[in-house]
Amino acid sequence: MLKKIRVSLAQINPVVGDLSGNVKKIISCIQKARELKSELVAFPELAITGYPPEDLLLKPQFIKDNISALDKVRAASRGITVVAGFVDSRKAIYNAAAVISNRRLIDVYHKKILPNYGVFDEFRYFQAGRRYPVYKFGDITVGVNICEDIWDKDGPTRVQALSGAEIIININASAYHMGQAAFRENLISTCASESQAIIIYLNMVGGQDELVFDGGSFIINSQGNIIMRGKQFREELLTADIEIKKTRRRVSQTDKKELHALMQKGEIIEKIKVSSGAVKGQKPKLKSYKNVWMPALEEVYNALLLGTKDYVQKNGFHHVVIGLSGGIDSALVAAIAVDALGKEKVGGLYMPSPYTSQESFEDAHALAGNLDIKILTVPIDDIYKTYLNTLSETFKGTEQDITEENLQARIRGNILMAFSNKFGWLVLTTGNKSEMSVGYATLYGDMAGGFAVIKDVPKTMVYDLCKWKNEREGRTVIPERLFWKEPSAELKPDQRDTDTLPPYPLLDPILKAYVEEDKSFNEIMKMGCDSECAQKVISMIDHSEYKRRQAPPGIKITSRAFGKDRRFPITNRYKSY
Amino acid sequence: MLKKIRVSLAQINPVVGDLSGNVKKIISCIQKARELKSELVAFPELAITGYPPEDLLLKPQFIKDNISALDKVRAASRGITVVAGFVDSRKAIYNAAAVISNRRLIDVYHKKILPNYGVFDEFRYFQAGRRYPVYKFGDITVGVNICEDIWDKDGPTRVQALSGAEIIININASAYHMGQAAFRENLISTCASESQAIIIYLNMVGGQDELVFDGGSFIINSQGNIIMRGKQFREELLTADIEIKKTRRRVSQTDKKELHALMQKGEIIEKIKVSSGAVKGQKPKLKSYKNVWMPALEEVYNALLLGTKDYVQKNGFHHVVIGLSGGIDSALVAAIAVDALGKEKVGGLYMPSPYTSQESFEDAHALAGNLDIKILTVPIDDIYKTYLNTLSETFKGTEQDITEENLQARIRGNILMAFSNKFGWLVLTTGNKSEMSVGYATLYGDMAGGFAVIKDVPKTMVYDLCKWKNEREGRTVIPERLFWKEPSAELKPDQRDTDTLPPYPLLDPILKAYVEEDKSFNEIMKMGCDSECAQKVISMIDHSEYKRRQAPPGIKITSRAFGKDRRFPITNRYKSY
Repeated sequence: MLKKIRVSLAQINPVVGDLSGNVKKIISCIQKARELKSELVAFPELAITGYPPEDLLLKPQFIKDNISALDKVRAASRGITVVAGFVDSRKAIYNAAAVISNRRLIDVYHKKILPNYGVFDEFRYFQAGRRYPVYKFGDITVGVNICEDIWDKDGPTRVQALSGAEIIININASAYHMGQAAFRENLISTCASESQAIIIYLNMVGGQDELVFDGGSFIINSQGNIIMRGKQFREELLTADIEIKKTRRRVSQTDKKELHALMQKGEIIEKIKVSSGAVKGQKPKLKSYKNVWMPALEEVYNALLLGTKDYVQKNGFHHVVIGLSGGIDSALVAAIAVDALGKEKVGGLYMPSPYTSQESFEDAHALAGNLDIKILTVPIDDIYKTYLNTLSETFKGTEQDITEENLQARIRGNILMAFSNKFGWLVLTTGNKSEMSVGYATLYGDMAGGFAVIKDVPKTMVYDLCKWKNEREGRTVIPERLFWKEPSAELKPDQRDTDTLPPYPLLDPILKAYVEEDKSFNEIMKMGCDSECAQKVISMIDHSEYKRRQAPPGIKITSRAFGKDRRFPITNRYKSY
Repeated sequence: MLKKIRVSLAQINPVVGDLSGNVKKIISCIQKARELKSELVAFPELAITGYPPEDLLLKPQFIKDNISALDKVRAASRGITVVAGFVDSRKAIYNAAAVISNRRLIDVYHKKILPNYGVFDEFRYFQAGRRYPVYKFGDITVGVNICEDIWDKDGPTRVQALSGAEIIININASAYHMGQAAFRENLISTCASESQAIIIYLNMVGGQDELVFDGGSFIINSQGNIIMRGKQFREELLTADIEIKKTRRRVSQTDKKELHALMQKGEIIEKIKVSSGAVKGQKPKLKSYKNVWMPALEEVYNALLLGTKDYVQKNGFHHVVIGLSGGIDSALVAAIAVDALGKEKVGGLYMPSPYTSQESFEDAHALAGNLDIKILTVPIDDIYKTYLNTLSETFKGTEQDITEENLQARIRGNILMAFSNKFGWLVLTTGNKSEMSVGYATLYGDMAGGFAVIKDVPKTMVYDLCKWKNEREGRTVIPERLFWKEPSAELKPDQRDTDTLPPYPLLDPILKAYVEEDKSFNEIMKMGCDSECAQKVISMIDHSEYKRRQAPPGIKITSRAFGKDRRFPITNRYKSY
């Protein structure tokens, strides 16, 4: 015989700190779930506050306000059960899930496993929970836990399953990096079959500073098979009827012993009855669907798009400006910005110098034409000459060097910022991860701006994304010449990136090995690099930490981005080689 | 009857990542301690790697190299016992103290209490220890623990004392903020009398990016009274004969029960014999001394001095350059730089515009004269005019506004950076904490530079420090007019800071309450602020997070600095008011 429950997963995009806005969004989803006759509607981890609230969590008033906000959700839960992430406050604060039913706060679950690696700092704020409640909805038993809780084989999911949970609702704020969606599904699938429970994996969606939450919620049955897959990078209310075979699991003597041992250690295991308001009337029919996870490049492009859109809009900007050099990096950033914001909200600034080639002029304008965005021209020659003139006396007797190159980049940075100040436009910077890694960028020059869209995208992937974009559009958006002309900063005559750097197809694997994988010099040598090249690259990475420290935030798409994902000392004499 | 042991505390200044340099320094201290016939010499927390090594700790090769480095210390420990901080590596890594005696590694203690608040991220890297060893040196029993371990009443110090430790050696990398030295002494004094043990408190010294370790090691007897106090902000080898009354403490039945209960929980308590090489020959006589903790302003000034000196020198710079505006902030920074590096290594750059007053010209030059540093003049008029001219067409029809002010600040930033690029000079920025808090600074303008010396010093304290400096010198270093002329950015005619901000004596307390103490709007109102002013200030703080994210590092001197001490979302819609 089958037991059934209709569940809605509210894959929402909250804004950090926007308590009233988030509550409004939550209540509107509750209303929709009610119309669909769902018995239960779940919301992501810290849905009330947005994730991660960072040091807002140290403000007692913020915690109080978040609890008042939760109370508004409680009051709106007539006739339905709501599971929602918020910050609970006892002697310490907890990353918590409220279980609310028919306007009553039934219970609060405290996240047990607190991530404190990568971009996560949860030990900075939260106390770990020590309770594993399960909830009885009539004859169905449900466990609720939070994000990292499900990643540990012996964690809350196992204990809740052992104490009878047939369904586990795991609420998340899980940040995107490449391949995460498929990785999560595999992991949760194993977890479901091991624990013999149905797992509802609900993720947040949206951009928050350097992070993108990619959505992609799903439901997996107790055999580990997918029942439903939601959209990536979009808000969505997924609703499904979940069917459970009656008395699915017998609790063995060994299971009982394991639970007993936990309780001996002071952990609390309990069953809590939830008297949900009976759902009346005919349930509307649901369509079941399984979206397919996006292929890698489409996924990355969409992450960049959502991250950009949300940074711009959540921070109240209405227009962005991009320095268009005629190179491929700024072309990609402009294409993303147009897809994120609409072409009316994107402006290009073309700032030629005497070193700018005719090709760059043509390519920048072809790009702007393809994207149908306005492009303004502000030549930097006069300003550059005036700088040189002003400095000529104090610089007398010195050779032309990097100083003059940086000056040009910084004049362009100043002009972009002047447009930002004058018209309220946000400057999007165009540097890629390869440049950011080796410091092949000018601080306060091309690094100047509010948001660094492709900061975590290696140069070789910039090409791939541009190619993907043209194919996807079925037309040339990114001018063809950009794919084969040699990259150049055009800050002196006949300059090429390869004057300073190894070719990108050689460089990028070293960067990945050193920055993302913590490989040693010897391991990098074994990849087939010559020793001089590897030494030079590692040394460049180490010595440009001071630049990265002053870089604008940008979207994480790899397993380790710069920013709070990689915390490196500036003052550092360690030599890996 | 008295038992005696001679102990040396090596209050050293290691460099993060400089494994061989740190080992060299350690071995040289061992040699000196041996000459003084010490039985034991102790080194700070993570003395081998420097503190904090941050994400270097994620590199397996770095951990291996640190263990090889420790082995060199072991090999140099003939005839003496050495306690030294390093990173131990088992299945996980530990913040550890090696106990080495006469070239044998006797034991490794693992830090139990890992700080993960403020500037600390120790859960990111380390596993917590579960052992409380004590060491028998003949008839003297010694416990070793690390930093935070001593802050918990029921932590390792208590357990080690209960299991017989007469001396606790607590090795630290404890970062400076105002009043820390006296606070530590009080705390440790209570701890010593509660645990009835002598406590040797050894701290690191030196600057590391945003942190200054202030030294100030000391020894406290089991009645809680100070025996010896070391220097603040200097390297030092403190040596003392420590006397212990025999059979000082009887272990009660309650104590035994407490230890038993711990062991039940899987914690390990053990006594380990250390056969130290016998110290032969006549011991040289020691002078005992108790330095007095510096008064507040002297302490802050010295922290700024050491932080600046170490940032400059450890990063290999030989000269700094400072934009001298004729204001008090740049005057203080220049004075600190001269004290830190010597006047030959400091250059001033005076960059007047048409809005620069005659007073500013005089004051900048008077300051340079008083400090006996060179001052170069680079007027920005021509460059500014050329920018305006270049932008005139695109900006046609717009009003003059903040854009033109920021342009001037950014031209100055570019000129400073041009000097940095051309001559390899490090740019010291001159913004104070009040400006950084409310965003009264130009990104890529006056915020441009490598190191922000007074970033954590509120404006009112800038005045106090300058006054202190003049008094200390017994002459006018900071020109008198700077104390009473009204602060102005001089970016437009007749501009005053108070056009935009409340007067600093009103502003600074609000900033402290909101930024450092997480006070709510209502609490701030209760301090006597008017509501409009408090709202404006809080809103300015919240809205300038994006600027702070791109600010250079600077020295922490308050209980909460900007930087990794305060991790705030940029995208944030929370309104505290």
